[in-house]
Amino acid sequence: DDLGNVNSDESTDSAETVAAEETEASGSSYSYDVNPVDYEPIEPHKDLDQEPVPVKMERIGENEVNIEMTAQITDIEIAPGIEYKTWNFNGEAPGPLLVVQEGDWINFTLHNMDPAIPHSMDFHAVHADPATQFADVKPDESGTFRFQAGSPGVFMYHCATDPVLSHIANGMHGAIIVMPKDGFPTDDEVDREFVVVQNEWYKYNDLENMMNMPPRQVVFSTKTLEYMADDEVDGYTFDGVNTNGTVTALTENDADTVLYAKPGEKVRMYINNVGPNEVSSFHVIGTIMEDVYLDGNPANHLEGMQTVMLPASGGAIVEFTLKEEGSYSFVTHQFDHVSKGAVGTIVVNES
Amino acid sequence: DDLGNVNSDESTDSAETVAAEETEASGSSYSYDVNPVDYEPIEPHKDLDQEPVPVKMERIGENEVNIEMTAQITDIEIAPGIEYKTWNFNGEAPGPLLVVQEGDWINFTLHNMDPAIPHSMDFHAVHADPATQFADVKPDESGTFRFQAGSPGVFMYHCATDPVLSHIANGMHGAIIVMPKDGFPTDDEVDREFVVVQNEWYKYNDLENMMNMPPRQVVFSTKTLEYMADDEVDGYTFDGVNTNGTVTALTENDADTVLYAKPGEKVRMYINNVGPNEVSSFHVIGTIMEDVYLDGNPANHLEGMQTVMLPASGGAIVEFTLKEEGSYSFVTHQFDHVSKGAVGTIVVNES
Amino acid sequence: DDLGNVNSDESTDSAETVAAEETEASGSSYSYDVNPVDYEPIEPHKDLDQEPVPVKMERIGENEVNIEMTAQITDIEIAPGIEYKTWNFNGEAPGPLLVVQEGDWINFTLHNMDPAIPHSMDFHAVHADPATQFADVKPDESGTFRFQAGSPGVFMYHCATDPVLSHIANGMHGAIIVMPKDGFPTDDEVDREFVVVQNEWYKYNDLENMMNMPPRQVVFSTKTLEYMADDEVDGYTFDGVNTNGTVTALTENDADTVLYAKPGEKVRMYINNVGPNEVSSFHVIGTIMEDVYLDGNPANHLEGMQTVMLPASGGAIVEFTLKEEGSYSFVTHQFDHVSKGAVGTIVVNES
Ligand SMILES: [Cu+2]
Ligand SMILES: [Cu+2]
Ligand SMILES: [Cu+2]
Ligand SMILES: [Cu+2]
Ligand SMILES: [Cu+2]
Ligand SMILES: [Cu+2]
Ligand code: NA
Ligand code: NA
Ligand code: NA
Ligand code: NA
Ligand code: NA
Ligand code: NA
Ligand SMILES: [Zn+2]
Ligand SMILES: [Zn+2]
Ligand SMILES: [Zn+2]
Ligand SMILES: [Zn+2]
Ligand SMILES: [Zn+2]
Ligand SMILES: [Zn+2]
Ligand SMILES: [Zn+2]
Ligand SMILES: [Zn+2]
Ligand SMILES: [Zn+2]
Repeated sequence: DDLGNVNSDESTDSAETVAAEETEASGSSYSYDVNPVDYEPIEPHKDLDQEPVPVKMERIGENEVNIEMTAQITDIEIAPGIEYKTWNFNGEAPGPLLVVQEGDWINFTLHNMDPAIPHSMDFHAVHADPATQFADVKPDESGTFRFQAGSPGVFMYHCATDPVLSHIANGMHGAIIVMPKDGFPTDDEVDREFVVVQNEWYKYNDLENMMNMPPRQVVFSTKTLEYMADDEVDGYTFDGVNTNGTVTALTENDADTVLYAKPGEKVRMYINNVGPNEVSSFHVIGTIMEDVYLDGNPANHLEGMQTVMLPASGGAIVEFTLKEEGSYSFVTHQFDHVSKGAVGTIVVNES
Repeated sequence: DDLGNVNSDESTDSAETVAAEETEASGSSYSYDVNPVDYEPIEPHKDLDQEPVPVKMERIGENEVNIEMTAQITDIEIAPGIEYKTWNFNGEAPGPLLVVQEGDWINFTLHNMDPAIPHSMDFHAVHADPATQFADVKPDESGTFRFQAGSPGVFMYHCATDPVLSHIANGMHGAIIVMPKDGFPTDDEVDREFVVVQNEWYKYNDLENMMNMPPRQVVFSTKTLEYMADDEVDGYTFDGVNTNGTVTALTENDADTVLYAKPGEKVRMYINNVGPNEVSSFHVIGTIMEDVYLDGNPANHLEGMQTVMLPASGGAIVEFTLKEEGSYSFVTHQFDHVSKGAVGTIVVNES
Repeated sequence: DDLGNVNSDESTDSAETVAAEETEASGSSYSYDVNPVDYEPIEPHKDLDQEPVPVKMERIGENEVNIEMTAQITDIEIAPGIEYKTWNFNGEAPGPLLVVQEGDWINFTLHNMDPAIPHSMDFHAVHADPATQFADVKPDESGTFRFQAGSPGVFMYHCATDPVLSHIANGMHGAIIVMPKDGFPTDDEVDREFVVVQNEWYKYNDLENMMNMPPRQVVFSTKTLEYMADDEVDGYTFDGVNTNGTVTALTENDADTVLYAKPGEKVRMYINNVGPNEVSSFHVIGTIMEDVYLDGNPANHLEGMQTVMLPASGGAIVEFTLKEEGSYSFVTHQFDHVSKGAVGTIVVNES
């Protein structure tokens, strides 16, 4: 029961047929190249498929952390049979989840492993002069920047190098959670936590397509909520799998990556919609979100929500209970996007 | 003064002309088949036009109701001269309005009158294991499910059978209101209530079109706020008309379906945007929404809003005063959608 | 570092090339005419380019103001080298900013200088019967209307003549701020204020394009926060520049129109997304919005937001601090729209 079909073989065939028929039957000449398998990578990336380099995070003081990341070029299978030579952070797209505490100073180093194109980093979580602190790092160079995460929330990060749309859409995005000093009012009720990021895929590195066409895939990924090396950021459980922006990664089909919970547990999801273009209507099938914090700030509390509106780059914390054993999907309720992959599953059982 | 024109004869002509001209003049080959009159229904539905079967609702206990609905195939004129062989609930699209009380247990039976395709029901208002409680009901069979409406609000319901986008877009959607146990803070101020549902129409049963093209029609419908048979759900007025998702149903052109109020009355609208794909920017011309409850939960109160953002499947309660006699339109302020039909009217007079 | 490229010469060339290639390579026949330089104005406007007529605002009583505006036809360069024969208010698109006090009665006169087409005015800020108080004013005639601005906020205004989409998309939109009687809780913290309006441009006067195609340009404009003639509306600073809906007007490239602030100042922005079709995901790069008031109402307070969701016609007040000297861009984080121009800059320095 996969809620849609565009990335299955069957639907791809059907897509091509229908488009052709439309051209003749109705005078509509719009068609939609669903399966971008055979594209030509740009010349300097043609033979690159860089191994993921693990992110480094280290707490070096009560309010100070070091974070090191890479900008790199790595093939990711974004849907069954569909590879994309992503531009990304640390070999993942979305990039690795970062978790810091409200008030932390971040010493951030970006190693640009791309031999051809500058990259950079814009954290929505910090105050910074973009020109100098989110500055371009040249190919094969590194840059170090320092800024403070002064406000709690679930923030987007992304490459900010021009044209930004290409850099985000090619895979340079992720989430950074800033845990509030005084926690959330509902911390005591929460039994299990997940992190879910929504992103879109377009035609490989094609700015016109990214600007003017609907997305080809819309996907959810999940990221492990990791403890920092020295365990100074605590209060959350380790539950995690890491998936890249792949259509079926979080569906029941894939036992390795599907999310698990127990009946009656209160589940918290840290969510962010990294876009680059679309808004999200986040919904969990079979439940109601008892508590929602817009952009993940404890002050922005909503209750009893069926669906949460996320702007492009918007975040939220959503909390809900899955009462019965079963299989609960979450979607953006913009169902064109579900048909393009935007569905994940939480399997609820006693084991 | 109909705010748009796409579904009038004049505009349809103009649409076809302009599209053709565009192809030649600017190299743009996009065109838009506005008027899908002559489509071929799928084989098993070809000779079906099932009479609407009234929904059955009965309160059988202080916190328990029985609801029986049908999944069926019925022709609906979605715009003047444009028929659509809808998949729907009880012969209406959007389906019949359901109203229960917070905490009610619902014994729900779905009779699938479709001879060919399974259908199902997903209530956003309840906690349920989707796989078993929102399960497919086979053609010509019935299924019974039980779940609790534990949280107040204006919730979407819809068929959840794969591919869900096709089932929703073909007409299988509606709204269920769960009245809060302790009411709303503004209950005493409200003089008149309406229920308005927004939905889109695409090319008949064409998943590619639903996934990748803008909607052809965007429409508002209204549903009667009915008392339950035994009158145990009370506190709201009967004011109603029932319209299906038809472009002009709620405009001043149609005296039978236009909404009426008196000068100075405080009007409450229960609204839901069932999509399937688009968000809504709900606005009432000539007034300001004094009180807004996001997703219809009393806890989520906003004030003095010009426009309310509804995600796909999102609901709200909006309250406003129409001070003078006159004619007040409501729209989604995404005006491309107004030009495709998303406009309704409240006529305010003393009679 | 312009964040996008669609309106530069380079990108326009690239656009045409890519579109052509797509047609052959993938069977996709969609193309996008980026550069609408050579269009044919409608016959009655062909030789018109009316000089902007300044808006007149005069306070005539403690709670009463006179406002006079024009509907007129004026060429505006909406992007470098791209002229648009706009339909507009007072020669600007967006039109002039209006500022009144909560409770003010407005005596409003519209002079329609258009020799061919009726125009009108719908203020979201007031209670009014649309048919009589937002009524059409015939070519070369004037109309006077009276209504009260009873609720504080950042409201859209626009022409309401049928088809409304054409009138808004051709340039007939703007913002009216209604200052709250009792101010905002954060008034004392604010050092500097700006007004920013987002709008889209489509193919000149082409309703089909406006209804079915993505926007060609998405732009931010700023408007001077002017004192009324007799200075009775006070409490805000004069800081202003007036720009029309031009792609590069608010970027660093243009020293005359870029916005300036000092390090550490708390900046307030009054924002409105006049559409006509798209929602906005408003974000300021390099900071976090400490305080947000949805639709500009003091009651609708959010904190610590990275991005604010604006429906079509939605407004907000957003407040943030730019700590370091530097150059801070603001965008809608729907990055397809950034690539089409939706970016502005605040230069922060000590001078
Ligand atoms: Cu990059
Ligand atoms: Cu950003
Ligand atoms: Cu169905
Ligand atoms: Cu649903
Ligand atoms: Cu006009
Ligand atoms: Cu309006
Ligand atoms: Na798009
Ligand atoms: Na649900
Ligand atoms: Na669409
Ligand atoms: Na209004
Ligand atoms: Na559009
Ligand atoms: Na930021
Ligand atoms: Zn398909
Ligand atoms: Zn290193
Ligand atoms: Zn709560
Ligand atoms: Zn037309
Ligand atoms: Zn029965
Ligand atoms: Zn109130
Ligand atoms: Zn380009
Ligand atoms: Zn005059
Ligand atoms: Zn505050």
